[in-house]
Amino acid sequence: MITKLDEIIEAAKQKGKKRLVAAFANDSHTIGATSIAIDLGIIDATLVGDIDTIKKVCQEEGIDVNKYTLVQEANEQAAANLAVKLINEGKGDFLMKGLCTTDKYMRAILNKESGLMPGGKPVLSHVSVFEVPTYHKLLITSDVAVIPAPDFKQKVALTNYVISTAKVLGNPKPKVALIAATEQVSVGMPACVDAAIIAAMGNRGQIKGAIIDGPLAMDVAIDKESAQIKMLTSEVAGDADCLVWPSNEAGNVFYKTATKFAGAELAAMVVGAKVPCVLSSRGDSTKTKTYSIALAALSCK
Amino acid sequence: MITKLDEIIEAAKQKGKKRLVAAFANDSHTIGATSIAIDLGIIDATLVGDIDTIKKVCQEEGIDVNKYTLVQEANEQAAANLAVKLINEGKGDFLMKGLCTTDKYMRAILNKESGLMPGGKPVLSHVSVFEVPTYHKLLITSDVAVIPAPDFKQKVALTNYVISTAKVLGNPKPKVALIAATEQVSVGMPACVDAAIIAAMGNRGQIKGAIIDGPLAMDVAIDKESAQIKMLTSEVAGDADCLVWPSNEAGNVFYKTATKFAGAELAAMVVGAKVPCVLSSRGDSTKTKTYSIALAALSCK
Repeated sequence: MITKLDEIIEAAKQKGKKRLVAAFANDSHTIGATSIAIDLGIIDATLVGDIDTIKKVCQEEGIDVNKYTLVQEANEQAAANLAVKLINEGKGDFLMKGLCTTDKYMRAILNKESGLMPGGKPVLSHVSVFEVPTYHKLLITSDVAVIPAPDFKQKVALTNYVISTAKVLGNPKPKVALIAATEQVSVGMPACVDAAIIAAMGNRGQIKGAIIDGPLAMDVAIDKESAQIKMLTSEVAGDADCLVWPSNEAGNVFYKTATKFAGAELAAMVVGAKVPCVLSSRGDSTKTKTYSIALAALSCK
Repeated sequence: MITKLDEIIEAAKQKGKKRLVAAFANDSHTIGATSIAIDLGIIDATLVGDIDTIKKVCQEEGIDVNKYTLVQEANEQAAANLAVKLINEGKGDFLMKGLCTTDKYMRAILNKESGLMPGGKPVLSHVSVFEVPTYHKLLITSDVAVIPAPDFKQKVALTNYVISTAKVLGNPKPKVALIAATEQVSVGMPACVDAAIIAAMGNRGQIKGAIIDGPLAMDVAIDKESAQIKMLTSEVAGDADCLVWPSNEAGNVFYKTATKFAGAELAAMVVGAKVPCVLSSRGDSTKTKTYSIALAALSCK
């Protein structure tokens, strides 16, 4: 079982190279991160963008441009669409956002005709894996970035996404905490009610392959002593592998507090499309970008 | 200006003793915390509860029972009501929860005839002051505990509460960040919209005595580098004194992540009643309980 982010890189290496396609890869951040991942032996990379700009950036950064397959498309939205098309044509295993805006990137993925969405009613969401120095294992969480206020069905989807990511990381039966402001089932609080229902679905085997409990307040989910003080009996309490957030706001506050105040690093990806999609931002550390590429590569079927 | 929690104790000492009344103070936690505060010279204390039990606990804990004024009431709700009555009769300056449940404590405070609520339409809420080792000053936040999902008017009240607490701590013009999942004004996200409106009210002087900005994502509020990367110009960004949470869930996740993962300590109190009310729980550290008593004492008029 993987318990550190560095081990994701090792696991991705062992699994063998996957083919990354980067959408509008005209910037030093995308080029730098993919270059590291290539050198680590995790990926081959196709960069879709303006080839002259890409060559110039490579020269400035001292990166050998010959390590990439380059595809010319100087328009932002067209480059995102073309990257998606290459995936659909089988020319890549997973997607990465370059300099195009998140809006245009998601539009390309979500496009009903040319996008990357499977049939049915798929839920496009986001999984992030945190290594917090003061916690004894990785924390796999959803959703800190994509769905602002998940409804019940979406929360079920998030629950399944963290479980499947845990399995990718070698954990056959993760402990999943559905987070609320309290572990009491306050029927006036939708987060509590949804969590109780999803936990019951876990008990009945309607959601498989995990030990699910909720509602749990954050302290109880990750701190055994807090659970003991509150006299809470739960297999998940104090030992959660996965956290499902009641809202993007709560998740985002965790994300930022953990990274800025508690020295956490993370890997993240968009899930629910046909392939994993990396959605790193300029603010992410180089480590986070590398870990995210490795996580997505390891998550490819 | 106070920048560490220890300084709150010093400031409370200098201000002079306040009279605490503890509701159903039959437990070692309440007795221990008030004993420390008495010894620090911050308070005199009246304990309402079962006197025999209180004496027994004092003996077990090696605390001199004579430092307290004792008032007999063996029933939980009646003890909470009686503590409130003593405040209303001018026999105490602020309230503290003992072994009675939060429900019963709040019921005593909120009672329309005998409670502690001022006239008009007061908003009973919660202010917590965090000392995070990795942040350069205290963070005054609301609401992590009392109002699950504050509406717009309640958010305005929370904003005013953090501002007035900042003033109590000697900050004449605090920087207030209204937290959302993003600093973009996404009109589909109520947290973003409410934050933008409250920030505008601050600009127009409808909320006074502070520099208010929002919506701000957590990272941007407390990390200058994140703000720079996002090219955000804001007096508040990276230097917030106060954080207003869009929901209890988000606030609670901050609270627990900061204390459990980032080594934060805090002081907290219920605000909006006629007097500050301490609401510590068994899970709080002795330090937090002492800081909370000092904060409430310092906040007394």
